[in-house]
Amino acid sequence: MAQFINAKTDIIQDAINGLVAASGGRLARLDGYPFTRVVVRSDWDKEKVAIISGGGSGHEPAHAGYVGEGMLTAAICGDVFASPSVDAVLAGIRAVTGAAGCLLIVKNYTGDRLNFGLAAARARESGLKVNMVIVGDDIAIPDLKQPRGVAGTLFVHKIAGATAESGRDLDVVTAAAQRAADQVFSIGMSLSTCTMPGGAREDRLAEGEIELGLGIHGEPGAETLPFETASKALSSAIERLTPHLEAPHYVAMLNNLGGTTALEMSILVETLRTSRIGDRVSHIIGPAAMMTALDMHGFSISLYPADREDLERLSAPTRISAWPGLNSFSAPGVVAMPAAEVGEHVSPSLDSRTEALLKSCCTALIEAEPDLNALDAKSGDGDTGSTLATAARAILDGMDRLPLNDSTLLLRALGRILSETMGGSSGVLLAVFFSAAAEASAKQKDLIAALSDGLSRMEDVGGAKPGDRTMIDALAPALEALGNGFAAAASAAREGANATAAMTKANAGRASYVSATKLDGHTDPGAEAVARLFERIAAQ
Amino acid sequence: MAQFINAKTDIIQDAINGLVAASGGRLARLDGYPFTRVVVRSDWDKEKVAIISGGGSGHEPAHAGYVGEGMLTAAICGDVFASPSVDAVLAGIRAVTGAAGCLLIVKNYTGDRLNFGLAAARARESGLKVNMVIVGDDIAIPDLKQPRGVAGTLFVHKIAGATAESGRDLDVVTAAAQRAADQVFSIGMSLSTCTMPGGAREDRLAEGEIELGLGIHGEPGAETLPFETASKALSSAIERLTPHLEAPHYVAMLNNLGGTTALEMSILVETLRTSRIGDRVSHIIGPAAMMTALDMHGFSISLYPADREDLERLSAPTRISAWPGLNSFSAPGVVAMPAAEVGEHVSPSLDSRTEALLKSCCTALIEAEPDLNALDAKSGDGDTGSTLATAARAILDGMDRLPLNDSTLLLRALGRILSETMGGSSGVLLAVFFSAAAEASAKQKDLIAALSDGLSRMEDVGGAKPGDRTMIDALAPALEALGNGFAAAASAAREGANATAAMTKANAGRASYVSATKLDGHTDPGAEAVARLFERIAAQ
Repeated sequence: MAQFINAKTDIIQDAINGLVAASGGRLARLDGYPFTRVVVRSDWDKEKVAIISGGGSGHEPAHAGYVGEGMLTAAICGDVFASPSVDAVLAGIRAVTGAAGCLLIVKNYTGDRLNFGLAAARARESGLKVNMVIVGDDIAIPDLKQPRGVAGTLFVHKIAGATAESGRDLDVVTAAAQRAADQVFSIGMSLSTCTMPGGAREDRLAEGEIELGLGIHGEPGAETLPFETASKALSSAIERLTPHLEAPHYVAMLNNLGGTTALEMSILVETLRTSRIGDRVSHIIGPAAMMTALDMHGFSISLYPADREDLERLSAPTRISAWPGLNSFSAPGVVAMPAAEVGEHVSPSLDSRTEALLKSCCTALIEAEPDLNALDAKSGDGDTGSTLATAARAILDGMDRLPLNDSTLLLRALGRILSETMGGSSGVLLAVFFSAAAEASAKQKDLIAALSDGLSRMEDVGGAKPGDRTMIDALAPALEALGNGFAAAASAAREGANATAAMTKANAGRASYVSATKLDGHTDPGAEAVARLFERIAAQ
Repeated sequence: MAQFINAKTDIIQDAINGLVAASGGRLARLDGYPFTRVVVRSDWDKEKVAIISGGGSGHEPAHAGYVGEGMLTAAICGDVFASPSVDAVLAGIRAVTGAAGCLLIVKNYTGDRLNFGLAAARARESGLKVNMVIVGDDIAIPDLKQPRGVAGTLFVHKIAGATAESGRDLDVVTAAAQRAADQVFSIGMSLSTCTMPGGAREDRLAEGEIELGLGIHGEPGAETLPFETASKALSSAIERLTPHLEAPHYVAMLNNLGGTTALEMSILVETLRTSRIGDRVSHIIGPAAMMTALDMHGFSISLYPADREDLERLSAPTRISAWPGLNSFSAPGVVAMPAAEVGEHVSPSLDSRTEALLKSCCTALIEAEPDLNALDAKSGDGDTGSTLATAARAILDGMDRLPLNDSTLLLRALGRILSETMGGSSGVLLAVFFSAAAEASAKQKDLIAALSDGLSRMEDVGGAKPGDRTMIDALAPALEALGNGFAAAASAAREGANATAAMTKANAGRASYVSATKLDGHTDPGAEAVARLFERIAAQ
């Protein structure tokens, strides 16, 4: 499966360089390529206890992404899913460890234990104070003496990092980390395996299956279950977590194993909240991709019975963007809907001239129905005429409820009727046109200026300009000429509408999807409708 | 393709509830389910200009993930890839807009333009000040009059949000947003399409193909190219960006379209840095999933010629964890490797009793080679004997260079020889054993106490305890008995070694992968070696 990599041998180096380059100078790397791949804080003065972690790569942002003030001092990066060497770990230890000593936080895998363990021994030989805490938080396999270290390790990183940052000594830091390592527990689920860089994704899981109790290296889960919904899947995970629940409240970490969408992760949060352990989760970290297995389409939940000090440490600020922060967890806050816009009661009013004008417009549109439909059939679904006729009939029907002697209120009311009866884009656009015209009219602009404002807003919202083969090609010149009377406007509208027949490259609206030859020689139905309106008015 | 969802109709509601529940009270939602899905800041007092965005879902964390101090005031969420309704947008506007007015930031899609546009018109009718900025940053299709709004929209969100947060009025906020919208440009690439929730992933792309110039809704890219490496792919994207480069320096945003691993994203950062436009990128945002297309395995690059004010706005602090922050972009900082541990010069020294003891131990191991290999063949690859014999020969060969009269230095030297000649886990574990023993010896502990410390550290690092069918089953009782003399130690070691024959469930080491029946009746080769050592010493 193709992936965004260059030379396969350079994967880790390239990624570390990218991480460090994008860190704004907060990170650096040791000059030890190709064998020593260690990311360090660039501002580190060895005054405080150093926190060191690492292991195989492929779990990003862990571990290098957590290097920074208040979390890790250094991360030692192995190849994908492979422990770094003793020499690399030792180089990392010696690069950042001062008189205050260092704590190694190691996930419970044989390779990591051995390589970090021997490096620690060597570092002690040269007089450095080195402690080590091993994290084995995975509860997938009951009674396993060597449980794997998975996402719960992040609790240990943050708690140790915040404790060290506050200036406490190595024993205090180690004790805080050990307590976290001892008490955090995790379980993972996945709908897929993961894809090794340059390799293929193993198709172990059939469609409709999910694995429960898996690690972070693509190894099979402890169980394969049928998958139906997020809720049922989470229930299975919770069943495994429940026997370990002793404290009244927990911090939950919801970790994306890499390939789960943000949408799904939020759904899982809600599913957890409404699950039967939801009320025992007082705080949440994430959802976020924190300890991944490359692109695995899964998640893990870690639970930790944090005490007051732990909560402070977990919420201590850090600039590390991969750390999503600790939040309290509760039912989503709900804000009342704004009072529905009071159905503005508009008093009808009379104005015979306006009424006559409106009626003749409506009649013109109703009469034009078949012609406009025929034109529309050339570029669309042939309903422009019917749509406009429907709106026109609605206006005629409601004529005695219209505020005919108040142009602002009338324009507004027409916009409402059009948006309610026309539907589709043109209904919205005409509603915008009349609404903006009403707004301008309310500001004492004359009718021509108000309609021009409407046009301009309609252009903004619809994105069409003159020349784009829309109703604007007739409306714009008509409004421009309207100062010279209805006849001038009608003639400008007709000219504009006719010109659309030669516009074979529509840039907006549905006609933009139609080939040029099908449009050639046919006027745009919207522009034609506008021209007929103005012609009818001029003829009166 | 299975996904972590519950009822398909509830996807957006579930996800919004999860997002709000995990926000620590900073977010709330409008009480308008199921049709109105609006996320708002819970601390909003309408004093400042409100910033509103939204659109179809499926782009998470956009847009609801960016609601918070200094970015969005409200996000209006449609269905996946579908615009929210006019009513929903209007409810959002009315919920957060005070006298200072609001700015709508809308991606350039017809549905969004129309629905946000009409909602704005309606809101203005009721006297609210509403401006709208439309973002069309996609340069995939040259000369397109209506370019799509993609990840560059995030620049507009942050710049408008920071400007509003600083208390500026609607005109200033709008102008800042409009400048950003006018000048940001983006292009996307992907190795895959995306999977609609509850749907299948369209297999449009063949293995080894990549699409260039695609949007965020799974629509085909402008071009399909052969894919070879991240570097060549990025070059094609840069070719399209280059004609738009006018300013000396740009802020680059590297956006994960959803399904790209963090490892790949960092590799893309490094590939960008070393590309021919690398030196024109002065700052970087990300890499991060900011404007996604569900699980699309792709990325987009946006470039923006930020001025001094923009840089301040983009780097203004915010607690929104989905905003990765703005960093300067430069070559990765490199720190010198710590001076290689000076090959500690150890002066050889003589001690005839120690020499004799060592020699007989080595001889015992060499003689035991075939027996130990045979035992190991029951549970492993049959080389325990040879591995130990090789190490023993190395010790014999180097006897005249050993510091025989200094137990601390000798233990340390033995550890080195074993780790260098044995390889594998046992070499590391024995190195840890001797190194820790040396450390204890340096603290004036007697030899038995020092060796016990070594054992305890080896247990810590290796994770094995007595009873786990390892060499510890002989070593631990031997050291315990050693105070009573070599004979007692030898007999304890033998008893311990023999007992391993009945330990059919190995918990550590390689034998843990072997079935019980294969182990039954055979002593562990490591324990056997320890027993033979002590027996030889006792017999002297």
